[in-house]
Amino acid sequence: MASDGPRFAFKVKATDGRARTGEIAMKRGTIRTPAFMPVGTAATVKAMKPENVRATGADIILGNTYHLMLRPGAERVAKLGGLHKFMNWKRPILTDSGGYQVMSLSELRKLTEEGVEFKSHLDGSRHMLSPERSMEIQRLLGSDIVMAFDECPRADRPRDEIAASMELSMRWAKRSREGFDSGEDHAQRSALFGIQQGCLDEDLRLQSAQALKEIGFDGYAIGGLAVGEGQEAMFATLDFAPGMLPEDAPRYLMGVGKPDDLVGAVERGVDMFDCVLPTRSGRNGQAFTWNGPLNLRNARHAEDTGPLDERCHCPTCTSYSRAYLHHLQKSGEILGAMLVTEHNLSFYQQLMQAMRDAIAEGRFASFTADFHRHYRA
Amino acid sequence: MASDGPRFAFKVKATDGRARTGEIAMKRGTIRTPAFMPVGTAATVKAMKPENVRATGADIILGNTYHLMLRPGAERVAKLGGLHKFMNWKRPILTDSGGYQVMSLSELRKLTEEGVEFKSHLDGSRHMLSPERSMEIQRLLGSDIVMAFDECPRADRPRDEIAASMELSMRWAKRSREGFDSGEDHAQRSALFGIQQGCLDEDLRLQSAQALKEIGFDGYAIGGLAVGEGQEAMFATLDFAPGMLPEDAPRYLMGVGKPDDLVGAVERGVDMFDCVLPTRSGRNGQAFTWNGPLNLRNARHAEDTGPLDERCHCPTCTSYSRAYLHHLQKSGEILGAMLVTEHNLSFYQQLMQAMRDAIAEGRFASFTADFHRHYRA
Repeated sequence: MASDGPRFAFKVKATDGRARTGEIAMKRGTIRTPAFMPVGTAATVKAMKPENVRATGADIILGNTYHLMLRPGAERVAKLGGLHKFMNWKRPILTDSGGYQVMSLSELRKLTEEGVEFKSHLDGSRHMLSPERSMEIQRLLGSDIVMAFDECPRADRPRDEIAASMELSMRWAKRSREGFDSGEDHAQRSALFGIQQGCLDEDLRLQSAQALKEIGFDGYAIGGLAVGEGQEAMFATLDFAPGMLPEDAPRYLMGVGKPDDLVGAVERGVDMFDCVLPTRSGRNGQAFTWNGPLNLRNARHAEDTGPLDERCHCPTCTSYSRAYLHHLQKSGEILGAMLVTEHNLSFYQQLMQAMRDAIAEGRFASFTADFHRHYRA
Repeated sequence: MASDGPRFAFKVKATDGRARTGEIAMKRGTIRTPAFMPVGTAATVKAMKPENVRATGADIILGNTYHLMLRPGAERVAKLGGLHKFMNWKRPILTDSGGYQVMSLSELRKLTEEGVEFKSHLDGSRHMLSPERSMEIQRLLGSDIVMAFDECPRADRPRDEIAASMELSMRWAKRSREGFDSGEDHAQRSALFGIQQGCLDEDLRLQSAQALKEIGFDGYAIGGLAVGEGQEAMFATLDFAPGMLPEDAPRYLMGVGKPDDLVGAVERGVDMFDCVLPTRSGRNGQAFTWNGPLNLRNARHAEDTGPLDERCHCPTCTSYSRAYLHHLQKSGEILGAMLVTEHNLSFYQQLMQAMRDAIAEGRFASFTADFHRHYRA
């Protein structure tokens, strides 16, 4: 592992309104913010070689604790030298805590103060996730940015349930901090993020932010959004939630989102994102462009010799026509998934770079106006 | 298109026993022989980017007339600038005639002297393939090496059926020659190969070879093998079939094969091969190595930190462990198909290069002895 960098140093280089641009220096590399992190669920960013993920401009990727603990298993990954070596990605990796997926994917869950007991969706085997075990797994994986273990309730639950869930997550956040700190070697090379909960409720969000600040984290995630509440409700929450978190730490909006979600969230002070959308859509033939998404399966692309996006400079747009990509999708060819995924990830990174440049140059408002003039969601 | 090379110039540079090494110079590039051609059925070598196919060492790839005429359609490919531009492969492409696939894949076939009427396996639409239409399609695709339209009977049919089929194929070969020559511009930039038939029968093979030589072709394929007769019967046929074909033209064994098939066929004077095995196996987790094939799904690879093959210098073997490839296969990840396909194609090209070197240096017998000492089929 590279070790010349600091453990974790966040620097805001410029602000424009509430939008910020800067960088996070870590031992395995520097992360330019606002940052989009491609999702590498099962130790692979689907349909991409790691060197091509890097070539899109990604500084960091995300790995899923829930998936990796079940297959191939955290202890096995550790035995094989850690997640970076296993999957051939040398730069920073953020791992989630497993809290979200264990509630959405596993079977026969039992939630207690201690943690969550569940059965694997793969083979029915029994497992336990708790703050301590989540920290241990993320340490075994060799994660650079570790996420606190939390519970993520649906936004349509009664307020008292949401409050109780948030309070549980804050007790778990404290146990996560202690668990993380007890892994000494790993704690000296990596960072821990807390996760703000409270759904759409301003008071609960504030209580959560205060609890997290009291514990102290390297960065702060905004959890519990992008779970079906809609863009309007999400933006309404982002009008107050980021400002409750420390100015001098990165703010990470988990699981977001569509290109227009990213623009609106950066506008509201968010620094980091992850989402499966560019990769999952790429496999289904949905491409993102500066004019909005397009579906390559549509027959109107069958004889279109133009690229996916005239402004995009990714390898797909410079070498392949929409007609060819349409053909690959219609034929169910793996290369179709590869090329559209590569374009989508490149487009997302070009969007992030355009936002970083606009903020640095103090023209973010004109950037967003221009974006919305062309982009048809 | 590059146009500085000759239309088609085959030169044998060295022989060792019956094995030969040389090169075919064409306008789009030079093909080193013995050559293995990866199969790009539907305008893509499955799970590979074209630049990575080239990086494995491939000088030429194969496209399938049957698949391409049905989807996206030969006229559409022509309208879009030809197959090379469509799929972003700039070097030579050999297209088969569609004769083999129309018999193995299509529905409701009707075979007459004129050609074959059939229904598409994709949508039931009606089509006709004849020597003239096959030449037209291959011209529309922009093929560099065009194959004569033939019929390929099963080796277990009665001798009189096999003889009648071979005679039909020879009449079709003459019509193919005429059809090819009538496409003037294309005929001046590309080459036409005839296909010897006659199954395992030495007399029929000789009659077929004589008929083809009388018509005259740039190269000669050995058809109707590798269709279930077994390696022993195939090698017995290859003990006499290649010698019936002109010394000064390349000999192409269609649809072959496993690594040990290639070694045995080169030993018997074959210069060119194509086969779906390295690509299809790659998608199923079967990897080829100098020690034989191995199945990555096998649990014994789960914690194996070694590469697929110690001697292989492909990107997969230099960057990934068997344990990781096992994980990708078990998880059904696209990257698993990508990495093992790339290894298999690289291994096949390394095998061809090793054979070319051994022949050039007059040590092919010791090469084959060494190969068989390590390779466990």
